[in-house]
Amino acid sequence: MGKFHGHAYPGLFLFCNGLYQAIVIFSDSLQSLCPPKKKGRWARLWKLSYEGLLKIVAGSLLVVYVNNCIEGGIILMDRELPPRFLYSKEWQHLTMFTLLILMGCVDVMSKNMLPQRCVVLEKGALALSFYELLLLMVSHAKGSSGIELQVHSLLILVVLLLLLVLTVELWAPEMFQPWMMETLLILVLGSWLIQAGFILYRPVSGYPWDDDDMNDLMFVTTFFCWHVMCDALCLFGIYGFSYFWHRCYYSSLKMMGSKEAPYHKSTPEPLYRLLQEIEQPEKEDQAPLLAKSSPRDKA
Amino acid sequence: MGKFHGHAYPGLFLFCNGLYQAIVIFSDSLQSLCPPKKKGRWARLWKLSYEGLLKIVAGSLLVVYVNNCIEGGIILMDRELPPRFLYSKEWQHLTMFTLLILMGCVDVMSKNMLPQRCVVLEKGALALSFYELLLLMVSHAKGSSGIELQVHSLLILVVLLLLLVLTVELWAPEMFQPWMMETLLILVLGSWLIQAGFILYRPVSGYPWDDDDMNDLMFVTTFFCWHVMCDALCLFGIYGFSYFWHRCYYSSLKMMGSKEAPYHKSTPEPLYRLLQEIEQPEKEDQAPLLAKSSPRDKA
Amino acid sequence: MGKFHGHAYPGLFLFCNGLYQAIVIFSDSLQSLCPPKKKGRWARLWKLSYEGLLKIVAGSLLVVYVNNCIEGGIILMDRELPPRFLYSKEWQHLTMFTLLILMGCVDVMSKNMLPQRCVVLEKGALALSFYELLLLMVSHAKGSSGIELQVHSLLILVVLLLLLVLTVELWAPEMFQPWMMETLLILVLGSWLIQAGFILYRPVSGYPWDDDDMNDLMFVTTFFCWHVMCDALCLFGIYGFSYFWHRCYYSSLKMMGSKEAPYHKSTPEPLYRLLQEIEQPEKEDQAPLLAKSSPRDKA
Amino acid sequence: MGKFHGHAYPGLFLFCNGLYQAIVIFSDSLQSLCPPKKKGRWARLWKLSYEGLLKIVAGSLLVVYVNNCIEGGIILMDRELPPRFLYSKEWQHLTMFTLLILMGCVDVMSKNMLPQRCVVLEKGALALSFYELLLLMVSHAKGSSGIELQVHSLLILVVLLLLLVLTVELWAPEMFQPWMMETLLILVLGSWLIQAGFILYRPVSGYPWDDDDMNDLMFVTTFFCWHVMCDALCLFGIYGFSYFWHRCYYSSLKMMGSKEAPYHKSTPEPLYRLLQEIEQPEKEDQAPLLAKSSPRDKA
Repeated sequence: MGKFHGHAYPGLFLFCNGLYQAIVIFSDSLQSLCPPKKKGRWARLWKLSYEGLLKIVAGSLLVVYVNNCIEGGIILMDRELPPRFLYSKEWQHLTMFTLLILMGCVDVMSKNMLPQRCVVLEKGALALSFYELLLLMVSHAKGSSGIELQVHSLLILVVLLLLLVLTVELWAPEMFQPWMMETLLILVLGSWLIQAGFILYRPVSGYPWDDDDMNDLMFVTTFFCWHVMCDALCLFGIYGFSYFWHRCYYSSLKMMGSKEAPYHKSTPEPLYRLLQEIEQPEKEDQAPLLAKSSPRDKA
Repeated sequence: MGKFHGHAYPGLFLFCNGLYQAIVIFSDSLQSLCPPKKKGRWARLWKLSYEGLLKIVAGSLLVVYVNNCIEGGIILMDRELPPRFLYSKEWQHLTMFTLLILMGCVDVMSKNMLPQRCVVLEKGALALSFYELLLLMVSHAKGSSGIELQVHSLLILVVLLLLLVLTVELWAPEMFQPWMMETLLILVLGSWLIQAGFILYRPVSGYPWDDDDMNDLMFVTTFFCWHVMCDALCLFGIYGFSYFWHRCYYSSLKMMGSKEAPYHKSTPEPLYRLLQEIEQPEKEDQAPLLAKSSPRDKA
Repeated sequence: MGKFHGHAYPGLFLFCNGLYQAIVIFSDSLQSLCPPKKKGRWARLWKLSYEGLLKIVAGSLLVVYVNNCIEGGIILMDRELPPRFLYSKEWQHLTMFTLLILMGCVDVMSKNMLPQRCVVLEKGALALSFYELLLLMVSHAKGSSGIELQVHSLLILVVLLLLLVLTVELWAPEMFQPWMMETLLILVLGSWLIQAGFILYRPVSGYPWDDDDMNDLMFVTTFFCWHVMCDALCLFGIYGFSYFWHRCYYSSLKMMGSKEAPYHKSTPEPLYRLLQEIEQPEKEDQAPLLAKSSPRDKA
Repeated sequence: MGKFHGHAYPGLFLFCNGLYQAIVIFSDSLQSLCPPKKKGRWARLWKLSYEGLLKIVAGSLLVVYVNNCIEGGIILMDRELPPRFLYSKEWQHLTMFTLLILMGCVDVMSKNMLPQRCVVLEKGALALSFYELLLLMVSHAKGSSGIELQVHSLLILVVLLLLLVLTVELWAPEMFQPWMMETLLILVLGSWLIQAGFILYRPVSGYPWDDDDMNDLMFVTTFFCWHVMCDALCLFGIYGFSYFWHRCYYSSLKMMGSKEAPYHKSTPEPLYRLLQEIEQPEKEDQAPLLAKSSPRDKA
């Protein structure tokens, strides 16, 4: 598997995944406003877990690709004496892609095959996958040094934080804050993976980075910080856009008639509730506590 | 104590313990459906803490075995000048087995001798034991290197995670998520301990692993990841099986008559509640929040 | 950017920020007692986020200053072959100051432009900034040793703790304990940054500290402990003062008449509630649980 | 300050403190049963914070002692050129003892001078003190190796855990589990400090421990584990004793008459509630959830 492609393609996949996840919040918050007429024939198809299917397809393609890169197929040991293990990196990649396929299977099963979606199962599978990913990446980064070590340490840090956030989500899968953090971390992981491919194998200036130059090492961290900043602004932009769209949509809906208003209060989505709270007049001086306000809604 | 047996037997004990614990959830969820006729003479025996007794017996046997392995019995110091400590590894094993016996005593006392089971006490003893186990293992692994260090680092990582989960359980002993994590980690600990015995002392290929070969070091982590994956699938299989059994049992019970239905709602077990939630029709679009839904049940 | 000023000025800014934040609690608790007559013309100005504006102004000035310190302006790479990165430290400082400006923008937007203040957004931006600050500081401290390493390690420790506290605040933005910790840590960060400037670049005795002297290294930690102690006492003093002021004010208000009493119970601020709890007679023997008492107030 | 006494005396102080704290729970649970006749003249004296006073007295004595050990009193720098810092270890000890005095002052102020006890303030002061203690001990242990490093690492580990538990207590000062952990950790800290004095400066065998002997290093950890075990058993013994005493006392009180029963239900102490829960008949099959049961009691 090519060194550059091995970093850039998974990175692109993760970045798009993060963007998709950010946009899903938006569409979810709008969907709660739409009349539920779609619940007919196409509703079942709409509810099909595209994310899960995508994971299965992507994982399978990557497994086939890794297997094809090696002449004669991938084997575990050679037949000499003493027998030696072969293709340790490829086997690690295969393990990662198998995890991706399993994760997709769990997604599809939970969303489409079980009588009701079981979020804890999905989040558990995701957390377990990132836990193994962390182990594999630590083992992967062992033996590297200089620029490569620095780039991989930052990746490992993101995966570690992602793991922590996913573990928190096991207890609070519908809470706003960990969900937002997860999306941001996935975006950072994706964009940094792409950048890592460029830094390590296709430097933009055409000259490789210098492992012994302190300046170069420091700029790795600086670039990473810019990535975090840009991804946060990107996320913020998506939300700002969704906020204004929702506002226009909501006010146009209000003019059309108020008979459809009651039902969408019964299915409040996280973001939607957030937006509603922001819109309410300044009766309270205190800031809205997202997490704590939900029980009040029901009371 | 033989090097291979010293890893494989405790590993087997832990793995069986994990399997037993996974199956207990299943039987618990079914028991809540059965009529409580058993609460007669044999009920007391049924409630006897087999786990606690097993721990006491296993611990005592291991203490006797360690003591018999050394000629003239185990002693702390020799009588030369200056006096030196002897058998440091054996004393560490003895400490671990004493912990096992104490843990068993606490289990039996809490489940059979106290007027009512005190889960916090049991979990506290368990957490304390794993805390000491972690210290002993870190001290045990000091001085090792290469493959041995890698194998033991992964063991220590599992014990550390187990310790964290057990600490969380002190606050939420009946919650589903930490309980599930604990079972998975015990399974991984057991199966990896068996594998560790094979890797370090009885390699399957007949040739010892090479400490200086990067490939071999990387495959240790890869094999560990496969263990985690297989144990997770194993746990998932047990739950899937329990789910379908419960479903058949429940529907056959329903046909028999509904007069026995009310009582088993008064003693809802965690898994049972989970399954009920999965079965209920798709009224809510949101996924069920396991932890948060319990108070609603009572209201 | 001068070495000494580069530590002392940001330190002074942070220290004043911490003091201001501590005093805000005081004025908030008093404000809840005052009649809300101010909500006229000047109220809008009063509500303007001075903190946010200050951050924007300070950040912009620092960006201009860094840019002016370098002849010909700051550039990313030189034009030689192979091209090298330049001014890595300056770019890190610029990144920090850009973060400060962005943080200020978020503050102003949340407090003045959104229909209602969104505390989670503010806290999220703050946490993200400190997360990047931590990364930059770790990269900054790499390569230093002796006294400089010791001084920077303590700074990094404070930033790490601050990051943890800010992450907790994402879930509980109005809770008393993390808010207090945040204020204390900002005070410590500020005062220690000033001291760091003196230790590293302008030692009071006129002679530089000795990197190889164990005594000097130990005194760095001792001085840091004294800073923590003094900042805690300082915070405690501000609260003691606010407590007695509030008490006098409250009793003088009581004498004026009780018709104004009801309204300030509807907007209880954290500290105010704390003070009220302290004042109530000794009916309960148990200590008041700050966090848990809030739901009771509303019931 | 003598090396051996410098470890053994603070250790003894901490160990007695831990025992006292464990016994206080017992007396608290009994006190809630006694008629509140003591609330007369002597009640005020009884409520005087002995612990706080003891801390002030012990701290002051230690400050005087350290000051007297050095001829001519303790000074910060000598008058040579370049001026050097002096007595770094003594200044660190002075800092620790000053913290002890401040902690005692906060205790006395919170328990006796404020209109009502402010547990958060006490716990905050305690956590801050242990935070500084940790910093000082890390700086203290730097430069040591072999047995000394191993002994101090275990001490630092205990202080770190204690710090975490105290931080948790800031949020849940009256919860049973962290309170119990705190008591156990203080006991371990005390007893291990005494043992550290013996290992490092007065070995029981009369011969110093060997830094290069792996056996000796491993036995340090083994001995520490035995300490933890013994301290846990000691704590368990105190509770078992308190449980049986309470049971006898309670049943004798019941025979005396039931008119005094209502009042002590209004002031339920944690342990008392725990004991009551253990005593109630086996209506519920589920284990009692300590933490969650408290709101139910009030409802």
